Amino acid sequence: MTTKWWIEGGTFLTMDDGQPIVNGHLVVEGSRIVYLAEAHPGALADGAERISGSGLLFMPGLINTHGHAAMTLLRGYADDMVLQDWLQNKIWPLEARFTAEDVRAGAALAAVEMLKRGTTAFVDMYDHMDEVAQVVEQAGLRGVLARGVIGLCSEAEQRAKLEDAIRFARDWHGKADGRIRVMMSPHAPYTCPPAFIEQFVQAAHDLDLPMHTHMSETAAEVEQNVRDYGVRPVEHLDRLGMFSRPTLVAHAVHLNDDEIALLAERGVAVSHNPASNLKLASGVARVPDMLRAGVTVSLGTDGAASNNNLDVFDEIRLAALIHKGVSGDPTAVPAYEALKLGTVYGAKAIWQSDEIGSLKPGMRADIVALDIDQPHYYPRTDLISHLVYAGNGRDVKHVWVDGVQVVRNRTCTRLDEERIAAEAAARFERLSSAT
Amino acid sequence: MTTKWWIEGGTFLTMDDGQPIVNGHLVVEGSRIVYLAEAHPGALADGAERISGSGLLFMPGLINTHGHAAMTLLRGYADDMVLQDWLQNKIWPLEARFTAEDVRAGAALAAVEMLKRGTTAFVDMYDHMDEVAQVVEQAGLRGVLARGVIGLCSEAEQRAKLEDAIRFARDWHGKADGRIRVMMSPHAPYTCPPAFIEQFVQAAHDLDLPMHTHMSETAAEVEQNVRDYGVRPVEHLDRLGMFSRPTLVAHAVHLNDDEIALLAERGVAVSHNPASNLKLASGVARVPDMLRAGVTVSLGTDGAASNNNLDVFDEIRLAALIHKGVSGDPTAVPAYEALKLGTVYGAKAIWQSDEIGSLKPGMRADIVALDIDQPHYYPRTDLISHLVYAGNGRDVKHVWVDGVQVVRNRTCTRLDEERIAAEAAARFERLSSAT
Repeated sequence: MTTKWWIEGGTFLTMDDGQPIVNGHLVVEGSRIVYLAEAHPGALADGAERISGSGLLFMPGLINTHGHAAMTLLRGYADDMVLQDWLQNKIWPLEARFTAEDVRAGAALAAVEMLKRGTTAFVDMYDHMDEVAQVVEQAGLRGVLARGVIGLCSEAEQRAKLEDAIRFARDWHGKADGRIRVMMSPHAPYTCPPAFIEQFVQAAHDLDLPMHTHMSETAAEVEQNVRDYGVRPVEHLDRLGMFSRPTLVAHAVHLNDDEIALLAERGVAVSHNPASNLKLASGVARVPDMLRAGVTVSLGTDGAASNNNLDVFDEIRLAALIHKGVSGDPTAVPAYEALKLGTVYGAKAIWQSDEIGSLKPGMRADIVALDIDQPHYYPRTDLISHLVYAGNGRDVKHVWVDGVQVVRNRTCTRLDEERIAAEAAARFERLSSAT
Repeated sequence: MTTKWWIEGGTFLTMDDGQPIVNGHLVVEGSRIVYLAEAHPGALADGAERISGSGLLFMPGLINTHGHAAMTLLRGYADDMVLQDWLQNKIWPLEARFTAEDVRAGAALAAVEMLKRGTTAFVDMYDHMDEVAQVVEQAGLRGVLARGVIGLCSEAEQRAKLEDAIRFARDWHGKADGRIRVMMSPHAPYTCPPAFIEQFVQAAHDLDLPMHTHMSETAAEVEQNVRDYGVRPVEHLDRLGMFSRPTLVAHAVHLNDDEIALLAERGVAVSHNPASNLKLASGVARVPDMLRAGVTVSLGTDGAASNNNLDVFDEIRLAALIHKGVSGDPTAVPAYEALKLGTVYGAKAIWQSDEIGSLKPGMRADIVALDIDQPHYYPRTDLISHLVYAGNGRDVKHVWVDGVQVVRNRTCTRLDEERIAAEAAARFERLSSAT
């Protein structure tokens, strides 16, 4: 029997430009929204479980388009350091010791945090991805997952990694009622030799999958690319055929005008990670320029070791603030556009904009309810503005993914939060005590 | 009879460099901390009300060193606009219609928001300040209040404003058990003629009060100062004698090296307002340079029309992030320093560092308890880092000011939150409907 439920008398931020705010009713049948309008749903609501929308603002679940969920285990382990020192002396040595169980524990902690802060879909690039996929399946999240690979190793090791990435795709793409999708993901141009990247592009063609990689995060990395390959990263990846596949690149901080134009032409989507880019002093991405050029820009938190939270609302607010301050234009990235980065454009960046990212009949029921009976939502001038400039993931009260309630009254329904927090704490103790 | 209470077995972020984190006990008698140490307080705890510290992180209340509390009434009313358009066509016309009752309603909403987000002391510059002072008294907050004046008017009007500012100081300085202090506050060099500023300096001397003003918020304002007076704002105010009084200046975004050196030499404190400066595209203040030069830098939210919240934790995180990203130095404004901006340096900026800003015996009991049984506080790597990079004012569970509990289980004890929100909503409706 298909479950049917009805939000009665709520305020809906649809993220649908035709009517961004609807004060009315929403009905879900199974995994999809079947009704959203001001008028009473009439017979359509017959037999539906009724949920009061009073004091709540409903919006599409947020989409986090870049991260490494398991890195929650390293949250706060090393901060305020120079990037290479941070990576080489702190992060990489501990990551090298990660077991599958560590990845599962870290991903589970990430799942709790993301769901409770209103994120319903996320991109993940890491190792031991079977564990992450199992967490996604159990948590009820939507995941676009990739076995990320670094190619600075022997050809035999490269081959094993490629095979693992292909095997993971075959095992998991389309699983968990279609909530899991898979990408092919060479880590970055500076960590993967060109021939290795080409093998991934070929595999993506063979499996009909999109691609994901880190690109142009730091100025040094761009310089090195020019030194090693004679061109900047965008042209380099384009020559290797990557952009012949649907591609999502993370960071894209250091781009010139030609590169922005090429990304737009090739339909390459960008995951903008403002908190991570600021914290690691990578710089400020040219988001207003990219948006003007027609590039799809979405938002990512990056891993919790470089953020250090997984709250996409924080990224939305940062995106709305920093591009104004840095460009000197107070109209840059207005509130509604900032919200689109975390919803509509996020869905487009993971090729699911027909399914998620906005609330309207026919879309999947990935819905977040925020408690707006709080001082920072008063007076009732402009809910979009309140949400972006004063709101926060802690305002989230309920969350549904694919029609299923995964957070009720600020508590995960499918995950044991206490056990997961304790397990993460214990796993970190084990990892760090042996160093 | 003096009230006595004892936090048993908690984690204390003291903000005292000698021992920033203490796992132990804290005892308060009356309005002051009388004990804070690892060891059991013994007989000192006799007869004390016992509060369990389990799952909580205690820290000094945050200090918001610049704002306009009543402007919560205009939260979200006008965003993403060019500054002059925003001020002249939106903010000022509505502000001109503010009555004393509006100011009281807006200040009350601000008081609720600040207390619930862990702010225990704030600076306020506005009109109808008797209303604000009464709200401070009732809410149990600590306030440093100033009747802000714009001098672009007749001499008679200027005189009336000066007299009102002096009268307000005489009526309120030292009131509410010493929780209220007063400053003399010409609005800004570009809104007050030199002779008018000098009258305020004289009044501050006569009354032995400090001074507060907006300074060098925008590049245009600095240029105008040079055009009108031949010097930049710092030298201008110095010549007018302002810095012969203890002075707190808000914004200080556009400073050259000489100005930073002069502020350090004169002991002028700065209120850095990162969210407001970004949102209004004013620019990014040279905080790392000011700190290096020995300037006392604190944090302010500014008014809720240009932020749009009053959460000092947000400002702490922004300060820790943007100065890294903009300077290219990932070690700029590390987590602990960012926390100092909102606590120890905040106290220094309002000349109360002997009383508030850190937790140790002898200090006033202005204490915030945060719920750290949440996913973003795991694993237990570094609580300071978690608080700055992943924490937020919504984590605040209890708040005490001057030894009195003003927030208990996320609810204000001395303010009627529901009535205040409804009143603010109604007041905004009235203000905006007549335009």
